[in-house]
Amino acid sequence: MRLVTLANETRDGHLHVVSQDGKRALPVDAVKTLQEAMERWDAILPDLQTLSRAVEDSGEPFAPNQALAPFPRAVQWLDGSAFETHALLIQQAWGMPVTGLPDRPLMYQGLSDRFLAPTQTAIFPSAEDGIDFEGEFGVILGDVPMGTSAKDALQYVRLIVLINDWSLRALGPIEMATGFGWLQCKPACSIAPFAVTPDELGSAWRDGRVGLPLNIHRNGQEFGKANGAQMKFGFDELIAHAAYSRDLPAGTILGSGTVANANYAEMGSSCIAERRAIELIETGTSETPFLTEGDRVTMSAQGPEGNDIFGAIDQSIQLVKATGV
Amino acid sequence: MRLVTLANETRDGHLHVVSQDGKRALPVDAVKTLQEAMERWDAILPDLQTLSRAVEDSGEPFAPNQALAPFPRAVQWLDGSAFETHALLIQQAWGMPVTGLPDRPLMYQGLSDRFLAPTQTAIFPSAEDGIDFEGEFGVILGDVPMGTSAKDALQYVRLIVLINDWSLRALGPIEMATGFGWLQCKPACSIAPFAVTPDELGSAWRDGRVGLPLNIHRNGQEFGKANGAQMKFGFDELIAHAAYSRDLPAGTILGSGTVANANYAEMGSSCIAERRAIELIETGTSETPFLTEGDRVTMSAQGPEGNDIFGAIDQSIQLVKATGV
Repeated sequence: MRLVTLANETRDGHLHVVSQDGKRALPVDAVKTLQEAMERWDAILPDLQTLSRAVEDSGEPFAPNQALAPFPRAVQWLDGSAFETHALLIQQAWGMPVTGLPDRPLMYQGLSDRFLAPTQTAIFPSAEDGIDFEGEFGVILGDVPMGTSAKDALQYVRLIVLINDWSLRALGPIEMATGFGWLQCKPACSIAPFAVTPDELGSAWRDGRVGLPLNIHRNGQEFGKANGAQMKFGFDELIAHAAYSRDLPAGTILGSGTVANANYAEMGSSCIAERRAIELIETGTSETPFLTEGDRVTMSAQGPEGNDIFGAIDQSIQLVKATGV
Repeated sequence: MRLVTLANETRDGHLHVVSQDGKRALPVDAVKTLQEAMERWDAILPDLQTLSRAVEDSGEPFAPNQALAPFPRAVQWLDGSAFETHALLIQQAWGMPVTGLPDRPLMYQGLSDRFLAPTQTAIFPSAEDGIDFEGEFGVILGDVPMGTSAKDALQYVRLIVLINDWSLRALGPIEMATGFGWLQCKPACSIAPFAVTPDELGSAWRDGRVGLPLNIHRNGQEFGKANGAQMKFGFDELIAHAAYSRDLPAGTILGSGTVANANYAEMGSSCIAERRAIELIETGTSETPFLTEGDRVTMSAQGPEGNDIFGAIDQSIQLVKATGV
C-alpha cells in the first residue's frame, strides 16, 4: 500500500491511496491527514487496504505537483547517521581521527514544522553556505514507548519514505564544534510523494534496512545510486536509541542519514560533501561544487521489479540573495 | 494579560485567560488552543483583552493540577545557552578551555511533541543518568520570516514563559562529543502554567531579556534565584540566529538556556550541574547529588510587585527502574 498527501485548502493536505503506477489516487474518508492515520492506524488499516485495491480500477489521475510531502508537517523528525563509509570518508578528508562511527548511533533532532513538497522550489539564504543534498531513507513510526529495545522496535514501523535532507555545509563544522549540534545548517527537508508500507519493498526490507538503490541526479547527470542496506545500525537500533529517555509519538519520522556504500567508486555518493571528500582524498582537491541558483536535484528508488516505489523528488534551488526574495 | 491551558478531553486542552491572583480563569471562545491563538493573534487579541478585564470579576476558580503546559505540544522548541557565567563555570570544572560563550549564539532543537504539565510527575529511565533541572525563561513567537535581523526580531515576541528543561547529565558529554548535539539527554521539558504578554513584566522586560529572579527550590530548600537579565545574547539575537536559514512558525518556543549570574555565591544556580561545577572548582569535590525517585523541584518568578507571574512548576520525580513502570 502506498499513500500520498494531495494539496487541498488546508495546511496538512488530504490523504489519498495511490495506484501502483503512481498516477491515480483515491481520497481516504476515514481520516483526512497522514497524522490522523498514524494515530488511528489499526482502526483504519482495513479501510486503507480496501481503497488500495480499488484505486487500480477507479483511481482519479493527479499531477505530480499536486503531491505535498506525505507529512507537510510532523510531530517529530529525528535523523541518524548510520552509514560507516560516509563517516570514514568525511573523517579522512577533514583530517579527523578515522575511527568510523562510534559504538552507539548518532542522531539529532531536526525541524519538523514543515517538509517541502517533492516538486517545491527550495529556497536558501546564500550559495556561500555550501548548499548540499543528502539522500536517505526514513521510517514513520506508531507510538513507541520509552525504553523499547531494538528487538521489539520494528513492530512500530508503519511506513517507509525517501528523504532529501538539505544541508548547508559551510555551517556544519561550526555547529558541530559547539557540541550543540546542527541548527542553521539543517533547513527543512523534502520527502518523496509516496509513503509506503514495508511489504511494498518485498525482500528489500530486511534486518530493519532498506535494500534499495537511492538514485540521485544533479542537473540530469547521475550522481549516485548507493544502496540503503549497508547501515551499521539498522532502524531497529535507531528506534531503540531514540526511545531511551522518551516516548516517541505516532507520526515520528526517523532517518537513516546519508546513504553510502563501501564500493563508492561504482555506486557514487548521496551527497556532494562525500564526493568532495573522495576527491580530496584521491587527488588532493575537491572539484565538485556545491549547489547554486537554478540547480536541479532529483531522487527516486526503484523496487525489485523496476517500479518507482516512492515517486520522485524533483526540486530546483532559489537563493534569497540572488533574487531579492 | 496571562493565559493558561486547562485540561479538557482533548490533547491540547482549552485556552483560558487567568486572573492576577492566578486562581480564576475564563475560557476563550474565539479559539480553543494556544496554537490557534498564535496563528490568529492579531485577530483575536481584542477578545483576549476583553476577557482579561472580565476575569477579575467573573472568573471561575480552578485547581493548580488542572493546568497543562501552555502548549501541551508545540510546533518547535529551540533552546539557547546565553548565560556566560554558566559556560565559564562548566568549562573550568570540566577541564575545557575556559573561553566562555562563542561569538555566535549556541542553540539546539529539542523535542516539542509534548511538554509536561506544571504539576505532572516527571518519569525518567534511571538515576544513573544524572537527573537535573534547568530553570530558564522562554519566548513564544509569531511567524518570523527567514532572514529576520536582531533589530527587527522583538516584534515577534508574543508571550513569555518559565521552563524547566529536564536534563540527563551523564549522557550530555557523550552526546556533545559527537557534534550531533543532544537527544537522549534532553527528555521533555515542563512549562509553568501561565504564558504572559511582555507588558506583564513591566520594566523587567528590557533589551530582549527577562530581568526577573528565577526562584528554584529542591525538596523545599532554596537552590537558586538567579536573574534572567545577564544573557550575553538577548532574545532578539537568539531569534535572528534561529531564523537565519528557516522561517520560524507561529508557536515556536525559544529558550534562554540555564539562567546564571556572575554573583552566584549570592544568587545560587539554576541547575545542579552548575552547582557541582562550583563545588568542584572551590573544594575539589562535587557534593550536591543529582535527583532521584521522590525528589521535588519547584520553580517560580515574582514580578516587581511581588506577584507570582508565571505560576509555579511543582514536580516530583519517578524512576522507571526503581518502580517497574
